[in-house]
Amino acid sequence: VTTSRKRAAEIQIRHIGEDDLIQRIAGWLAERRDGRRAVRSALRRLGMRVVVGIGDDAAVVSCGRGAPPLALTTDMLVEGVHFLADHPPEALGAKAAAANLSDLAAVGAWPAWILVSLGAPRQTPARWVEAFYRGMRSVMDLYGCFCIGGDCVRAKQLTVSIAAGGNCDPRSKIPLRSRAKPGQALYVTGTLGDAGAGLWLLRGGAARAGRPRPTERDRERLIARHQRPTPRVEAGAAIARACHDAAMMDLSDGLAADLPRMAQASGCGFDIDLSALPISAPLKRAAAGLPYSAESFALFGGEDYELLFTTALPPSKWFEAVSHAAATQRAAAGQRAASGRRAAAGRPLRITRISAARRGEGVRYLDRAGKVVEPRGPIFRHF
Amino acid sequence: VTTSRKRAAEIQIRHIGEDDLIQRIAGWLAERRDGRRAVRSALRRLGMRVVVGIGDDAAVVSCGRGAPPLALTTDMLVEGVHFLADHPPEALGAKAAAANLSDLAAVGAWPAWILVSLGAPRQTPARWVEAFYRGMRSVMDLYGCFCIGGDCVRAKQLTVSIAAGGNCDPRSKIPLRSRAKPGQALYVTGTLGDAGAGLWLLRGGAARAGRPRPTERDRERLIARHQRPTPRVEAGAAIARACHDAAMMDLSDGLAADLPRMAQASGCGFDIDLSALPISAPLKRAAAGLPYSAESFALFGGEDYELLFTTALPPSKWFEAVSHAAATQRAAAGQRAASGRRAAAGRPLRITRISAARRGEGVRYLDRAGKVVEPRGPIFRHF
Repeated sequence: VTTSRKRAAEIQIRHIGEDDLIQRIAGWLAERRDGRRAVRSALRRLGMRVVVGIGDDAAVVSCGRGAPPLALTTDMLVEGVHFLADHPPEALGAKAAAANLSDLAAVGAWPAWILVSLGAPRQTPARWVEAFYRGMRSVMDLYGCFCIGGDCVRAKQLTVSIAAGGNCDPRSKIPLRSRAKPGQALYVTGTLGDAGAGLWLLRGGAARAGRPRPTERDRERLIARHQRPTPRVEAGAAIARACHDAAMMDLSDGLAADLPRMAQASGCGFDIDLSALPISAPLKRAAAGLPYSAESFALFGGEDYELLFTTALPPSKWFEAVSHAAATQRAAAGQRAASGRRAAAGRPLRITRISAARRGEGVRYLDRAGKVVEPRGPIFRHF
Repeated sequence: VTTSRKRAAEIQIRHIGEDDLIQRIAGWLAERRDGRRAVRSALRRLGMRVVVGIGDDAAVVSCGRGAPPLALTTDMLVEGVHFLADHPPEALGAKAAAANLSDLAAVGAWPAWILVSLGAPRQTPARWVEAFYRGMRSVMDLYGCFCIGGDCVRAKQLTVSIAAGGNCDPRSKIPLRSRAKPGQALYVTGTLGDAGAGLWLLRGGAARAGRPRPTERDRERLIARHQRPTPRVEAGAAIARACHDAAMMDLSDGLAADLPRMAQASGCGFDIDLSALPISAPLKRAAAGLPYSAESFALFGGEDYELLFTTALPPSKWFEAVSHAAATQRAAAGQRAASGRRAAAGRPLRITRISAARRGEGVRYLDRAGKVVEPRGPIFRHF
């Protein structure tokens, strides 16, 4: 650590917060450029153009006439910050890939390739590295996506950095998070809070005295959602194809952190009826014995990797295509990877209307009686 | 650190070495896949195809009819492993970008975009982060290349992970490192060993007793080559355009580590005349006072980011185009970024013939008298 980084009087990144830091970085990068004219024409000749820049789940570039737009994203996962040291390596590889594929799904793109960098201590067993890559591949194989390169370096903390590229269907409209409009309904795929509760249980979080502890089966299902999330690739592509008015993003930090980002980017507000949040049966049962409600996990848990989207189109225009996309494609691909998933392959994806965009700004939470409440829960901070 | 990672009897990645580890990973990723048929057709419909996979400096994918091939690469840099803790942030940003642009240059691609992930301790000053991104941009602006996204996370060690994409000129032939053929001459751009000597001086490496210490000016120039290397973007693109028979790679680990990779990939050998290695005047002068010869730094120093290429074409067919590419393009772009570079902008790039590919395998080093010698020097190990 340098002396310049140690100077205490300075503003440090922990004082800023992730959203503000990203806005500052975007500012530093966006300032007027000098002397680019000659090289810009070289790029134009090659047909390259930025369609969506910093601020969405993925950037989108055009690669030239006749080629589908290319969506690009990257994520860095650090031991002790984003995953526990004993996260099984196979599940860690799968989760790292899923987090990136989820970002691509959020702009409706189908994953094509990933680049993977792994920082690891020198004494990491080769077997651990192999399980990590096999886990990653098990997710990529579901979508015909390749690992085409990467880097392996020495590091004190296990660090996984993945960059992923995917193709947008030219018939689709790219569903930015800034496109929500008052009057559109707000939907979410799957169920919320399972991954957060799974992490809580893994960390040995306290149960409520005198209440029943979660059953082993519920515990396992919640932990699996934390360790091996499913990216909503097929649903994202189907939404982009069917709902050309959609705003969309994926839920990685929890609804309470992510929805305000959509509200701010779109310049509208949302009122969330807490009783409408989609809660899985295992979470409902387990939460009875935990110090937070199922709704708190759904709002603050994070890492659900479900899709959040708005559209004014009636469900009759898109629901079946989106809900059945995953089931159909998995079945056609003859998926036989992870057990447990097999059962899910034929089941349509749950999609729940949880609010509607309104004029104004900010996100409010309403209880069953329609009263505005301020929910509290466990919050994950990046810095 | 998990118990599974601690088990001492197991093979650990430090026992394997970087090249072997990458080969193993490529093996795990390349095995037969099941159930991909349905999704493969989805990708084919979108026009995506892998042209160059794991093993070269960059992968290359085709993005569909009419679009230029897209080269992709990624690099992870870790504090204490790839850079010293007091590397100036502006120079670190520039170096991280340059390392990736150099990989793209090695397949003849022009950089189009980068994705940047930064892992940093919470107490990192915002000013440090700003200087880092500004330094990165100073390099990207030279080529009209954009930062289109990234990630910022908490980490104990400063960790920089960049993924970069670039376009191959459709008129070019992609110069893989496996394309060297007996009879082709072997060339290298610029001078070798400066960055390695700069790092040696920065680390306070011992001087030879009774010999003059490097002058302040020589010291600064060598350290600058370590802290702020120049990727050979224009030269790489010009070589790919002019020499359709070329094998090429960039020198990141030093000639003694990198050339055997080209030899092995191509199934040929090289005899290097040590007296032919291009050594800069500052290194020649400084090495007189250091415990290693200038040739040792050239062979083992690493991080030169020069291009190594073979071609059977006579220099009259390509030398001027390649050597003047950088000068011309920089002048046209009206570059006025870093001082010191301005002088270099008008100067043609040095290109030196250092060997010829021969039948057989392996790399041998010859002294001035033509005798085979085994040079020794400071070696950088990834694990």
